[in-house]
Amino acid sequence: MTIASAIQALTPFLGDQLSLSKPDLEAHGASESHFAATPPDAVAYPRDTAEVAQIVKTCSDHDCPVIPYGTGTALEGHTLAVRGGVSIDMSQMAQVLAVNRDDMDVVVQPGLTREALNTELRATGLFFPVDPGANASLGGMASTRASGTTAVRYGTMRDNVLALEVVLADGRIIRTGSRARKSSAGYDLTALFVGAEGTLGVITELTLRLQGQPEAVSSAVCSFDAISDAVNAVIATIQMGIPMARIEFIDGQTTRACNAYSNADMPEVPHLMVEFHGSDAGVAEQATRFGEIVEETGGTGFKWSSKSEERTALWDMRHKAYYACLALRKGAVALVTDVCVPISRLAEAVEASRDDIASSGLVGPILGHVGDGNYHAILLVEPDNKQEMEIAKALSNRMVERALAMGGTATGEHGVGIGKLDYMSAEHGDAWGVMGEIKQALDVKNTLNPAKVVQIN
Amino acid sequence: MTIASAIQALTPFLGDQLSLSKPDLEAHGASESHFAATPPDAVAYPRDTAEVAQIVKTCSDHDCPVIPYGTGTALEGHTLAVRGGVSIDMSQMAQVLAVNRDDMDVVVQPGLTREALNTELRATGLFFPVDPGANASLGGMASTRASGTTAVRYGTMRDNVLALEVVLADGRIIRTGSRARKSSAGYDLTALFVGAEGTLGVITELTLRLQGQPEAVSSAVCSFDAISDAVNAVIATIQMGIPMARIEFIDGQTTRACNAYSNADMPEVPHLMVEFHGSDAGVAEQATRFGEIVEETGGTGFKWSSKSEERTALWDMRHKAYYACLALRKGAVALVTDVCVPISRLAEAVEASRDDIASSGLVGPILGHVGDGNYHAILLVEPDNKQEMEIAKALSNRMVERALAMGGTATGEHGVGIGKLDYMSAEHGDAWGVMGEIKQALDVKNTLNPAKVVQIN
Repeated sequence: MTIASAIQALTPFLGDQLSLSKPDLEAHGASESHFAATPPDAVAYPRDTAEVAQIVKTCSDHDCPVIPYGTGTALEGHTLAVRGGVSIDMSQMAQVLAVNRDDMDVVVQPGLTREALNTELRATGLFFPVDPGANASLGGMASTRASGTTAVRYGTMRDNVLALEVVLADGRIIRTGSRARKSSAGYDLTALFVGAEGTLGVITELTLRLQGQPEAVSSAVCSFDAISDAVNAVIATIQMGIPMARIEFIDGQTTRACNAYSNADMPEVPHLMVEFHGSDAGVAEQATRFGEIVEETGGTGFKWSSKSEERTALWDMRHKAYYACLALRKGAVALVTDVCVPISRLAEAVEASRDDIASSGLVGPILGHVGDGNYHAILLVEPDNKQEMEIAKALSNRMVERALAMGGTATGEHGVGIGKLDYMSAEHGDAWGVMGEIKQALDVKNTLNPAKVVQIN
Repeated sequence: MTIASAIQALTPFLGDQLSLSKPDLEAHGASESHFAATPPDAVAYPRDTAEVAQIVKTCSDHDCPVIPYGTGTALEGHTLAVRGGVSIDMSQMAQVLAVNRDDMDVVVQPGLTREALNTELRATGLFFPVDPGANASLGGMASTRASGTTAVRYGTMRDNVLALEVVLADGRIIRTGSRARKSSAGYDLTALFVGAEGTLGVITELTLRLQGQPEAVSSAVCSFDAISDAVNAVIATIQMGIPMARIEFIDGQTTRACNAYSNADMPEVPHLMVEFHGSDAGVAEQATRFGEIVEETGGTGFKWSSKSEERTALWDMRHKAYYACLALRKGAVALVTDVCVPISRLAEAVEASRDDIASSGLVGPILGHVGDGNYHAILLVEPDNKQEMEIAKALSNRMVERALAMGGTATGEHGVGIGKLDYMSAEHGDAWGVMGEIKQALDVKNTLNPAKVVQIN
């Protein structure tokens, strides 16, 4: 029972849907962030659920790890084959299976990307709101419990997955949830598989909530001298019940990076970027009220617009912020932090992180989904510079320790993968052991994306 | 190792916090709906988490069932001691532990009721929105994944519990989640314990999301000749993105019951009762737009109001609808159904249920949380009339079968308890087995509220 015997068993069944080519293996063992390449031994390209089930079962029978793979945009090494094995590439399972307009839901395969879904939905008046920036696959987004800029209004993948089809370690195919909007019928298995990073089962179909395209959209930008003023503006906006669709924070350094990368000319101080969805009158009222709050909290340069070209330029710049930050240091790789804290502690957390980074000597812009209390430092290090990586990890550790002490979490939206594994015990205490007990109950041989999320053996 | 030896072991430790009095046992073995009385062997009244842990561990050591008990308002026999054992009454753990205004969250003990919480919050400008009608305990509401009239806007307990403290079967105390608004840090144990009905652990503390009290509230009533017209109005309202805070349906028979019970004079046809939350201008716009939809879909008698006394009267009548329906038949008990279907199928489902009930000869008014696709038939039967109970059960079975065939669920908000256990296999297929595997992993001796939700032994 080995990886080699698993591949041998899969070969006649999968034919040219099983790849052993070096470029393929390398592509599936690469990482968007700082992790070393860790290629799998083979890449499988299933076309339907039955094929996924047979791959997973065969690999389990042979004690061979399987690693579900969407688009490879995960930031914590989720898809790296750290124990070798077979990468299950979902790109051949990327169909929209059903659009239910009256119910405002859609059934999709896991390899479909969020942008492809929204392109298909364009004529329906509906859209899928979760937007992590990267054009990730929906299976991957569910598996990491992804969120991004719109979570403050529409929630994360936790809130937007209604039902799943999942292949279990032994090849059983189950369905969790239903197309009903709510249910009290037993344990919430949908929520259990969302965020499990492929360690409890392989997602082969998703039913997702959709939203109506808003009648009107307005967006606004404003700047602040101090991070705390920007955060106070956000707290006041939430408490007044103004339903922001997005509210993003970028610090002065990120602003500088965006100016250079997207040819903008914002003052190099902290900014908030906001979007409102609603009726014409509604978004005008929201923007006006937000403008009043900005003024009261010491913000300047507030302007709002309902012109779609200005809005597109704004969010295009925001979406490219990660690459803009990378470009601040040529050839650098990034260690990206992802803590999330109660919003009352956010200013303190960001300012302390800012000071820590400044004294470390590293370049590390900060930006975040400030309505959720979630922010990222993009710590830029030279590849293979061990000393710099140690400094970056120490900064990350301090950020996480501080976030946990404030009642927060080590990862707001990127997931655990291998990058955040060392923090799980501190974050969850004995509850991490309970996660391990669930993993052992559902994946007895530990073949499903092993060495991620929980620690077994 | 017996129930008797568990009680013996608990006696010196709990003293007068352990009751064996007959009235106490009977009160804890009673049901709000049609189930026969099933008293526990003892009732424990813990005052803190450590005492809960010792009770649970002691009972586990002695193979004695433990049944968490809030206010006893569950409708599916969740708190009945069907295998005997110790009822853990949470009424002595009913404190608000912390209100975090800037973060809009609150930490509470499980025995606190939702009305007591909202009374405590009154001065803060915040409120807890989940409203199942009954003044249930928050631990019980979490355990049944309760929802009610406001779920269409604010979500169910699934969406409003941020974090939990839970005592496991072996007495371990764990914390799930955090005060961060979102997290991707491993399996969503919070979601797993919410809706688990005390079968995986005993909830001893909850961190809940709060909402800002809306600046303005408006409410509206309108009537329809046909159920399908009412549902079409709801679908159009959702699709236009009008953010209803409540949208309730009552059929003609329920209207008649409400007229009699609450001294009203509505025409005895189907009605929608709606509420909007927002700014002054916002609720006016929402109500106006909703009024246009009502007109387009054939509704009549539309009137809206932002006067709080009219609104209070309306929702008071709606909250008493269950008792109003019970009063339609003197001395009757109710079998209450709770299916939830995709909203596109709702009119068909309700009309078919209406017809079924009419031909059965039973009285069974229908009402529901129509924005979620969730409705209840309140089937009135004479106590101990076996034939009527058989008819009611057959009606319930047909409703569930139809709901499942439509992609829905057997229970939208009441939970499984013992009343819906027989439907779980049909609803979940092999996924029900997975629930059982999780139960066995976390409650090896099956002492936590046994014979509910899953089937073990």
